[in-house]
Amino acid sequence: MSLREKLLPDYDRGLDLEGFSGDRLADRLSAIAEIGLTTEAGSCRPGYSQAERQAKDLVCDWMREAGLAVRRDAAGNCFGRLAGRNDHLSVILCGSHIDTVPNGGHFDGVLGVLLALETVEMWKATGFEPERPYEIVIFSEEEGSSFNVGCVGSSAVAGAPLTGQLGRVSDHEGRSFASAVEEVGLSLADFPAARRDLSQIAAFVEVHIEQGLVLERHGLPVGIVNGICGLAALDVTVTGQAGHAGTTPMNYRRDALVAASRIVTAISELPGQISETAVATVGQLKVSPNGSNVVPGKVRFSVDIRDVANEPLERLVTRIVEAAAGIAAASGLGLSWSRTFSQPAIAVDPRLKTLQAEAMRALNLAAFEMPSGAGHDAMILGAHVPMAMFFVRSKDGISHNPLEFSSLNDCAIAARALSRFLARLVSNTD
Amino acid sequence: MSLREKLLPDYDRGLDLEGFSGDRLADRLSAIAEIGLTTEAGSCRPGYSQAERQAKDLVCDWMREAGLAVRRDAAGNCFGRLAGRNDHLSVILCGSHIDTVPNGGHFDGVLGVLLALETVEMWKATGFEPERPYEIVIFSEEEGSSFNVGCVGSSAVAGAPLTGQLGRVSDHEGRSFASAVEEVGLSLADFPAARRDLSQIAAFVEVHIEQGLVLERHGLPVGIVNGICGLAALDVTVTGQAGHAGTTPMNYRRDALVAASRIVTAISELPGQISETAVATVGQLKVSPNGSNVVPGKVRFSVDIRDVANEPLERLVTRIVEAAAGIAAASGLGLSWSRTFSQPAIAVDPRLKTLQAEAMRALNLAAFEMPSGAGHDAMILGAHVPMAMFFVRSKDGISHNPLEFSSLNDCAIAARALSRFLARLVSNTD
Repeated sequence: MSLREKLLPDYDRGLDLEGFSGDRLADRLSAIAEIGLTTEAGSCRPGYSQAERQAKDLVCDWMREAGLAVRRDAAGNCFGRLAGRNDHLSVILCGSHIDTVPNGGHFDGVLGVLLALETVEMWKATGFEPERPYEIVIFSEEEGSSFNVGCVGSSAVAGAPLTGQLGRVSDHEGRSFASAVEEVGLSLADFPAARRDLSQIAAFVEVHIEQGLVLERHGLPVGIVNGICGLAALDVTVTGQAGHAGTTPMNYRRDALVAASRIVTAISELPGQISETAVATVGQLKVSPNGSNVVPGKVRFSVDIRDVANEPLERLVTRIVEAAAGIAAASGLGLSWSRTFSQPAIAVDPRLKTLQAEAMRALNLAAFEMPSGAGHDAMILGAHVPMAMFFVRSKDGISHNPLEFSSLNDCAIAARALSRFLARLVSNTD
Repeated sequence: MSLREKLLPDYDRGLDLEGFSGDRLADRLSAIAEIGLTTEAGSCRPGYSQAERQAKDLVCDWMREAGLAVRRDAAGNCFGRLAGRNDHLSVILCGSHIDTVPNGGHFDGVLGVLLALETVEMWKATGFEPERPYEIVIFSEEEGSSFNVGCVGSSAVAGAPLTGQLGRVSDHEGRSFASAVEEVGLSLADFPAARRDLSQIAAFVEVHIEQGLVLERHGLPVGIVNGICGLAALDVTVTGQAGHAGTTPMNYRRDALVAASRIVTAISELPGQISETAVATVGQLKVSPNGSNVVPGKVRFSVDIRDVANEPLERLVTRIVEAAAGIAAASGLGLSWSRTFSQPAIAVDPRLKTLQAEAMRALNLAAFEMPSGAGHDAMILGAHVPMAMFFVRSKDGISHNPLEFSSLNDCAIAARALSRFLARLVSNTD
């Protein structure tokens, strides 16, 4: 069954309003889904693969048919520009990516690109003409699934082309990043040329599937992102004393796993004391020596800590480290830790958020705000220019999986909210 | 430095009493340590290796020199018999094993064999003659280090020659157990012939190093074992729901590691509520999918549960399973468990324990009782005949390691307690 055949039966044609066409969007989502289709009905379009390039080419064709001026930059990012009546003004940029993880879904990234284009189709159909220029963008290699470096295209646009890092990485087949981009007609050495004059970008807007359960649990089709979570990653080691499980009485033990378990439990209870949006996850844990009849002597684990603002995030990091140190000390065990990764939180522009809320209310929709726990191209652009994001409800919160799904009704509602919001932005000549 | 050179400097020659010779014991421990000596100064004498056989042969030579009748049985166990004045009476059997783990220590097993022989030397020196026959035994393959099956020799003597199980096992080089025993002149098919008429064994006595910290912490050279712990092993799986560490709010999570951590903590607190001797250990634990940015969906772990008596052991198993089930249910997670191993506790004969205490007090030593958390050949024999064990203090509780050490003073005290205790047993003609 094609994606189109999965999307259309439940579609409410009453949502074909203001130039939006459910058929067109379903056709386009379905056409992209065919590129890199896996045997498990998922998508496989790694960044800088032939499949990603083919998908970009197809969207570029649609952009040309819609009358846009299309170009590809030195990092493979594709742009489709709709001139404004005052075309010298800074641009409103809208889009996402079209690459996927291996055997991923058909909405992650793609939906944001196609809704940016659907806005142009809706404006054409209703005769709306922007004052400012409007550009659709398809960023290259957001997922980082082959080379473990993500947001490559958006980073290049933002002036951080990552050429040093990318010059050292290879995929699991040993192919260098440099040779991979050559196969799609690019040169890593040219990536810095993709940099744009960021003062000429008035705002960046991205629609993305939520990849979580929040909207579904709240029964809402679309949410307004109020920030992209910052991330702190810790590497923690608890050191006790290995011993024989039979000959070491309980009160003689310095069991690293018991102490680590108390720490994991404490970590799970701390985010709620900091904020509603904070999360902390111990996802990786290794016990040494890991013998069934040996009291664990050492446990090493990861902590992934996120929040939508940097101050509570740092407060949570401090609380977690203090709790871990206190538990280890109380048990007479050693604790060492290091911070292995830091990504600051990226705020959403408050004026843009107000305009998003107005667009939602004009459609009689709740202006529901939520953080983005995952990173997106908007995180890269948002560090430099005003940024806004909409989330679209994900069925069962599933993502990076062939089962990833958002209903065409939810996509239609997102398209209408987006086009209204963007129309306000491109009409503002200040 | 030879083991002898490590043992003698701190030896109190005032302990050369009642025929005991510190020099002789140090010489013999040192001579055995040279057989299978590793580059890290440890012992490597796996069961049924040439090194084990060589060590047995050397002890058999010493037994012959001491005037004992020496024989080897079908399972390679070696016996040295001192006739009693009433030689038709059932025998007092005393000994241990002489095999080691790879790169193990120089006391585990060996000390029990050499103190059984030292008793004969002391009796000879003091002119003591037993009423009952007395036999020293060197059991084959106690550690099970090559084929993962331990207590092979003692099991054969007890009438459970394990031939079915042993017929199926191979070592890490792919050599079958059957061919391994052929290399030391034995045949697996003959193992059942090693069975002894257990009604002809009045008691089995074993001296062993403690392999733990209890005696050292109490400042005692020798302890009386009041039972060999039973063991229940559980395999537990907690099943939650994997999720994205960024997009899954804390209150939506079904984190298998958080629940498992609460269970591990609970398990560590339960033994103390059951008895002073109970222990429970989560030694092995595996997180799935074990990604730093993924909420754990599944955790599987082992539980090793021991106590010196079966009733409290089973009560602890029940409490642990109830606690795990309660914690999983409270978090809305799944729990499955199975019991993968059961070894009942083996009691020490109370009359023998009284005689051991009398022997200790006669030497002005505390009659300190403690359980054996590890298994020993005495566990196999003790299921069929009256059994008693002495433990000798282990420096720093270290065992199965080249650093394993017991002072010659402690060994001398154990020799005197053992010979006094055995003298009582072999004098009893009832």
